[in-house]
Amino acid sequence: MVPADKKYRFLLVNAFSTPSISQHLSNVGGASNRRLLYFDNIKHLLDDVEWETHPGPPTPYGDWPVENREEFTLVAAGRLPIVKEACESGKYNGIVLLGGGDPGAIESREIGRRYGIPVTSCAWSQMHVATMLGNKFSVIDMAESHNMYYQNVVLQYRMADRCASIRSLNCPLPRPPLHGGFDIQAERAKGDESEVVERAVTEAVAAIEEDGAEVITFGCSASFWIQPHLQKRLTEMGWEVPVLEGYSCAITLAKLMVDLGVDASGLWLPSDRPKKWRRKKIF
Amino acid sequence: MVPADKKYRFLLVNAFSTPSISQHLSNVGGASNRRLLYFDNIKHLLDDVEWETHPGPPTPYGDWPVENREEFTLVAAGRLPIVKEACESGKYNGIVLLGGGDPGAIESREIGRRYGIPVTSCAWSQMHVATMLGNKFSVIDMAESHNMYYQNVVLQYRMADRCASIRSLNCPLPRPPLHGGFDIQAERAKGDESEVVERAVTEAVAAIEEDGAEVITFGCSASFWIQPHLQKRLTEMGWEVPVLEGYSCAITLAKLMVDLGVDASGLWLPSDRPKKWRRKKIF
Amino acid sequence: MVPADKKYRFLLVNAFSTPSISQHLSNVGGASNRRLLYFDNIKHLLDDVEWETHPGPPTPYGDWPVENREEFTLVAAGRLPIVKEACESGKYNGIVLLGGGDPGAIESREIGRRYGIPVTSCAWSQMHVATMLGNKFSVIDMAESHNMYYQNVVLQYRMADRCASIRSLNCPLPRPPLHGGFDIQAERAKGDESEVVERAVTEAVAAIEEDGAEVITFGCSASFWIQPHLQKRLTEMGWEVPVLEGYSCAITLAKLMVDLGVDASGLWLPSDRPKKWRRKKIF
Amino acid sequence: MVPADKKYRFLLVNAFSTPSISQHLSNVGGASNRRLLYFDNIKHLLDDVEWETHPGPPTPYGDWPVENREEFTLVAAGRLPIVKEACESGKYNGIVLLGGGDPGAIESREIGRRYGIPVTSCAWSQMHVATMLGNKFSVIDMAESHNMYYQNVVLQYRMADRCASIRSLNCPLPRPPLHGGFDIQAERAKGDESEVVERAVTEAVAAIEEDGAEVITFGCSASFWIQPHLQKRLTEMGWEVPVLEGYSCAITLAKLMVDLGVDASGLWLPSDRPKKWRRKKIF
Amino acid sequence: MVPADKKYRFLLVNAFSTPSISQHLSNVGGASNRRLLYFDNIKHLLDDVEWETHPGPPTPYGDWPVENREEFTLVAAGRLPIVKEACESGKYNGIVLLGGGDPGAIESREIGRRYGIPVTSCAWSQMHVATMLGNKFSVIDMAESHNMYYQNVVLQYRMADRCASIRSLNCPLPRPPLHGGFDIQAERAKGDESEVVERAVTEAVAAIEEDGAEVITFGCSASFWIQPHLQKRLTEMGWEVPVLEGYSCAITLAKLMVDLGVDASGLWLPSDRPKKWRRKKIF
Amino acid sequence: MVPADKKYRFLLVNAFSTPSISQHLSNVGGASNRRLLYFDNIKHLLDDVEWETHPGPPTPYGDWPVENREEFTLVAAGRLPIVKEACESGKYNGIVLLGGGDPGAIESREIGRRYGIPVTSCAWSQMHVATMLGNKFSVIDMAESHNMYYQNVVLQYRMADRCASIRSLNCPLPRPPLHGGFDIQAERAKGDESEVVERAVTEAVAAIEEDGAEVITFGCSASFWIQPHLQKRLTEMGWEVPVLEGYSCAITLAKLMVDLGVDASGLWLPSDRPKKWRRKKIF
Repeated sequence: MVPADKKYRFLLVNAFSTPSISQHLSNVGGASNRRLLYFDNIKHLLDDVEWETHPGPPTPYGDWPVENREEFTLVAAGRLPIVKEACESGKYNGIVLLGGGDPGAIESREIGRRYGIPVTSCAWSQMHVATMLGNKFSVIDMAESHNMYYQNVVLQYRMADRCASIRSLNCPLPRPPLHGGFDIQAERAKGDESEVVERAVTEAVAAIEEDGAEVITFGCSASFWIQPHLQKRLTEMGWEVPVLEGYSCAITLAKLMVDLGVDASGLWLPSDRPKKWRRKKIF
Repeated sequence: MVPADKKYRFLLVNAFSTPSISQHLSNVGGASNRRLLYFDNIKHLLDDVEWETHPGPPTPYGDWPVENREEFTLVAAGRLPIVKEACESGKYNGIVLLGGGDPGAIESREIGRRYGIPVTSCAWSQMHVATMLGNKFSVIDMAESHNMYYQNVVLQYRMADRCASIRSLNCPLPRPPLHGGFDIQAERAKGDESEVVERAVTEAVAAIEEDGAEVITFGCSASFWIQPHLQKRLTEMGWEVPVLEGYSCAITLAKLMVDLGVDASGLWLPSDRPKKWRRKKIF
Repeated sequence: MVPADKKYRFLLVNAFSTPSISQHLSNVGGASNRRLLYFDNIKHLLDDVEWETHPGPPTPYGDWPVENREEFTLVAAGRLPIVKEACESGKYNGIVLLGGGDPGAIESREIGRRYGIPVTSCAWSQMHVATMLGNKFSVIDMAESHNMYYQNVVLQYRMADRCASIRSLNCPLPRPPLHGGFDIQAERAKGDESEVVERAVTEAVAAIEEDGAEVITFGCSASFWIQPHLQKRLTEMGWEVPVLEGYSCAITLAKLMVDLGVDASGLWLPSDRPKKWRRKKIF
Repeated sequence: MVPADKKYRFLLVNAFSTPSISQHLSNVGGASNRRLLYFDNIKHLLDDVEWETHPGPPTPYGDWPVENREEFTLVAAGRLPIVKEACESGKYNGIVLLGGGDPGAIESREIGRRYGIPVTSCAWSQMHVATMLGNKFSVIDMAESHNMYYQNVVLQYRMADRCASIRSLNCPLPRPPLHGGFDIQAERAKGDESEVVERAVTEAVAAIEEDGAEVITFGCSASFWIQPHLQKRLTEMGWEVPVLEGYSCAITLAKLMVDLGVDASGLWLPSDRPKKWRRKKIF
Repeated sequence: MVPADKKYRFLLVNAFSTPSISQHLSNVGGASNRRLLYFDNIKHLLDDVEWETHPGPPTPYGDWPVENREEFTLVAAGRLPIVKEACESGKYNGIVLLGGGDPGAIESREIGRRYGIPVTSCAWSQMHVATMLGNKFSVIDMAESHNMYYQNVVLQYRMADRCASIRSLNCPLPRPPLHGGFDIQAERAKGDESEVVERAVTEAVAAIEEDGAEVITFGCSASFWIQPHLQKRLTEMGWEVPVLEGYSCAITLAKLMVDLGVDASGLWLPSDRPKKWRRKKIF
Repeated sequence: MVPADKKYRFLLVNAFSTPSISQHLSNVGGASNRRLLYFDNIKHLLDDVEWETHPGPPTPYGDWPVENREEFTLVAAGRLPIVKEACESGKYNGIVLLGGGDPGAIESREIGRRYGIPVTSCAWSQMHVATMLGNKFSVIDMAESHNMYYQNVVLQYRMADRCASIRSLNCPLPRPPLHGGFDIQAERAKGDESEVVERAVTEAVAAIEEDGAEVITFGCSASFWIQPHLQKRLTEMGWEVPVLEGYSCAITLAKLMVDLGVDASGLWLPSDRPKKWRRKKIF
């Protein structure tokens, strides 16, 4: 239960759950991190927050992570009732959607707006912070279908003209019965020594030199752990470029929205029968 | 069952079903139209097509049509298994998604591509035909939340620079327990005398004179019946402007794709583990 | 003479004629192909069409193909009386402009609209089909001046934001008294072994990997024969990318326009003294 | 004959000639103005120029001015041999294309470049000067088909994002056997009292207040005489807005190009077999 | 002096000072607000901030506020040494630039970056928050020259495609020896009864209905006091639209940047002799 | 003193002065060039001009050239009183701002407009001439911070869509106490043999082949002397591409504006209390 004595009361909702992920989270779990991936990177941002996590909707298609559009739509639909219930509970003044590809994020903001509750998400938040820091950002992302799904996310957020590129690590996630797939735990354990970090450096430098990126962000949340490693490596090389990741951006923007008392414009995400309506919508 | 002796074998899938809509369709039904709304307008396009309809997924939230983003995502998720099953059946060489707001359309094309089956939809098809006929099109649409959902559809289809405006008839659909809502059957029965036709003329003329529209299209499929009435009225006024609707555009484009042997680029909608991948994606 | 018992009655008009081209076409001619270049690739699309070809206007400047802007304007002017006469004849319900660079195409649509007859062309049709299949397309084209002329065509069709690049094969066509020039017959006879096919593969892959192309099209019609060879090669390499060519796209879009009963908006291509006019035109 | 003792040696080429126009020009003619319409407005710009005029190609379709796209293409083709001959003559170091819609202008620049001779035109020149003076310009133009032709001209010049609007005076030119049509001589004789000036004021103010125009230009050269009248009227009203017309802009830009020794980039308008070529062209 | 025991240590720097403004601020001053205009609206955001204000550089041209470009450049230059000195002092971990038109803001961020100190400003912050809440924002601003200066600010922040319009209240500020000018104190004292509030409502509604604004912001800081009045009025009318003002947005974004440990990308605002450099910069 | 018997009476104002630059200019000085850098390249353009030079404002920060944004704003503010005084003197009918980065240029045009005097500058002028010659231009520029400052200049001039790239020579100017820095005199003396010319060729070719440049311009005025060397080299290689520099473009455009009697639109750069104002400003 979330007490009301802190300024911020957030529910952190994962994008989806699979048996494998649940198993992993319970292993790394503990009292303090409450099954929050990447807790160490962001715990200082949660000091003034009463927070809980939700594991997210179970994937209806099998025990592997979302990657293509079909899978994203299925878990987007699954996340909406969770958000709605959280809003109705009255326990939270902000909802943070975890996961990299923001399934159901705009719809969740539409729901949150009915209750005056801001909802932030990791792709959206990284993009907004990135555009505060430089002209263009690039996205380091995992694999083909996720890249192209993410391209659509960028487009929907009207960030296409600020996105220099989406750069692929070519690390598709596990997808039975296909063999192989990126083993996030194993690579994360290797840290600076991970081959994936190496690829991220290569793609980030290409993004900077060829694509015009001035800020680096990440796509799939399975790559968020790379952020401190990549930041360190680029700084050592002499590149004065900020590297962002999703959790910290989403949490700080949720705080900002609570502070300002805003959630979303009712003209962008209208109520069902608004008192005022516009004859025309333009681009 | 669909025999193989015709060139085109299409499944026409509604966006969603509600008890009220099912009731209505069974009333207007008959052997020939197989519960296809607006059958009369398009039957000449189905002469060389073996076709079936699917009622679409039931709305999980109640007995009213989709209008806001939350509802669209829920029925989008519901439509994907229908499309997948149709593809797997081997019975069809094309799938036509009915409904105006294209829930699940891009995802359905992703699914269809795995089987080499083209999938078309009403919003997408109207926009593509419209850009063949003039510089910009406007959309006549029903109500606030649908308008803004539709704006996002236009954006995703990369048609924002070709869309002059989305014009609202301010006819929200029924939504219990709220009172009122647009009664499509009643208005359609009035035909040229319908107040809704009058509003459509007013908004279409404003779209032409103020917004730069050179082609008129419709948003929500609950307004498609207005097309011949609006075309007639504008022509009588002296406006030499084409007025499109979704069913005819979606069917003819499905035929074109079958004729050309194309469905969608695998670079736009990648396979799950494609043999070839791109290091970067740009806008 | 074209009988009226088929659904489609099309005149296929070449872009221009030269003595050399006429000689070649009469060599490859025969009863069935009626001097239609690339007949084999598209004959299945002409099954339900009554069709005739027109050789196009003779080039006024000498016995070589159009390539630069001056030459394109000269044959554009020459093609308009042909289109006008065809429309006036009452024999056709659609006109298909052959040739890759669409000389006189928009003007021909303006003429066709006066008679309610749709006119399609190869560049325009490829671009419209391409944007149905992916975010961006590239154009494989022959040589410098044609490339830059074609760039202007893309711009006029408002397709600049969908065109990833125009890629040059650097195969200028014959131009006496200059020596050399691309020998289309010779290369076409070599098929998969042609050096030009090799270059097309190289440029298509560069377009995909560097420029963001998701669909491949062709510019100059002298390169249309490469289409099946390039499609095969890219598919073998693992690239899941559609390769289009102009004739098939132009014919199928002409059918679509006949089916829908549309030609062009009178607001885009106005009548000479229209009843209704707009005070302003915007972009 | 043009002597070589002046810095600038220009041929001023009309867009087209008709019997009626020739008759009019011979009436207003005289030794000094050499059949140059609007000579009084620009004679001070011709002090340091040796100049001649060419009447332009005769319209092949009848005794009325060009207005629609078909007519523009026909006279564009007719103007190219005139430009080529002028370049070959060695008499001129600049060519100024008169007329408002720039038929054959880019093609003429392609031709001029072969001889190192700059070619300017009225639409192009107004747009370039206008963008030096404000963010956006509007175009005051005569009638529907010319408006839409002109829209395409703006697009080709890559000025769409700087063009606030094209505003119509709804003054179609004479077009037998249709009745009526704008009588340029009669209206010009009325000067400030002309109804057409009144309409121009109305549309210019609307362009300023509604469309965002910060500079006013003219489309069809039949409206260029309105320039001083409109400038005076707007200034009197308190609008601090420059009003341009085509002849003065085209002449001064031709001088500038001669002074700088430039004509056009060979990368934009390539030679027929250039030594260097680019593998790709992008937008 | 600013103690180090709070998380945020900010210097709030006014855009400029004039004798009249200094007089006013000393009148409204007191221990708590430390001469901070609009203190009441934002004091809750300063609870966890150790803050000081700087009056800003004196205007070098006379006793009136900045409004045109010349004046903005003069005070921009004056503000830079203040920012540099604040950074060098080591007392602050964030600098908030007050004032509506952001004179010297990007340059101040360049300076701040050398010290790792984020700098935010009111125009920039409103725009970034606004784009989090809706597709497009409009700006309510005071007068002509300020409007056009501000347009350039929007452009520099790459927000032109998100800015629906800048709407003018036509309230030029005092400018001796010209008579009149907007009396901010008098109008502010009238509150809801102020004619200026009325005009703001009129323009905000026009921005919503005609221009596509989904969020309302303010330009000149002399209008920031209108924010709560306008929000109230629009809400009462039924418009579900957020109204922002600069101080609160700039303070909360400064906090966010401190929390995330970011200031600006060194690729956007490079160091003077950076270790790494890019061969090309693109848009 | 400037006599009135020539058509053009221009003041040429340097961007800034430092002790080192003053020393250099007095060395190269003489009666004819009146301390004008690059006099030889442009003297033919000054034949019909009565001209004077102004050394520009002294740099307030030390004896090195402006390069970063802070420095640019400081000298921009310093240049405005010079321009104002020149306008008030009544001696000039045009002002040409020397220097590559245009500090204070728009503000100077605002000032000049009050007196009806056109003001041109080197970046602005190159860009406008460049867009007359090809679709896109690239900028050859000296070093990181100047590149990024210049990017903002391009943006403000609304030339971002016409700018293919800014290419860096990586030649930072001297900046004590840092060591080294580009020695313009030494390199210029080497002429074709200069390593800097070599780098300029490399970057110009990359701009042409990779970025789409069709015209080459220069950024920092310390590189303007490279222009004839680069033009020669590119021409020898076979690239038919114009290479521009700032002084000649700024002088010829100033003449054009004098000839046309224009300076700037009062809607872009409004008077302080204009008689007419616009309710809205759009992009």
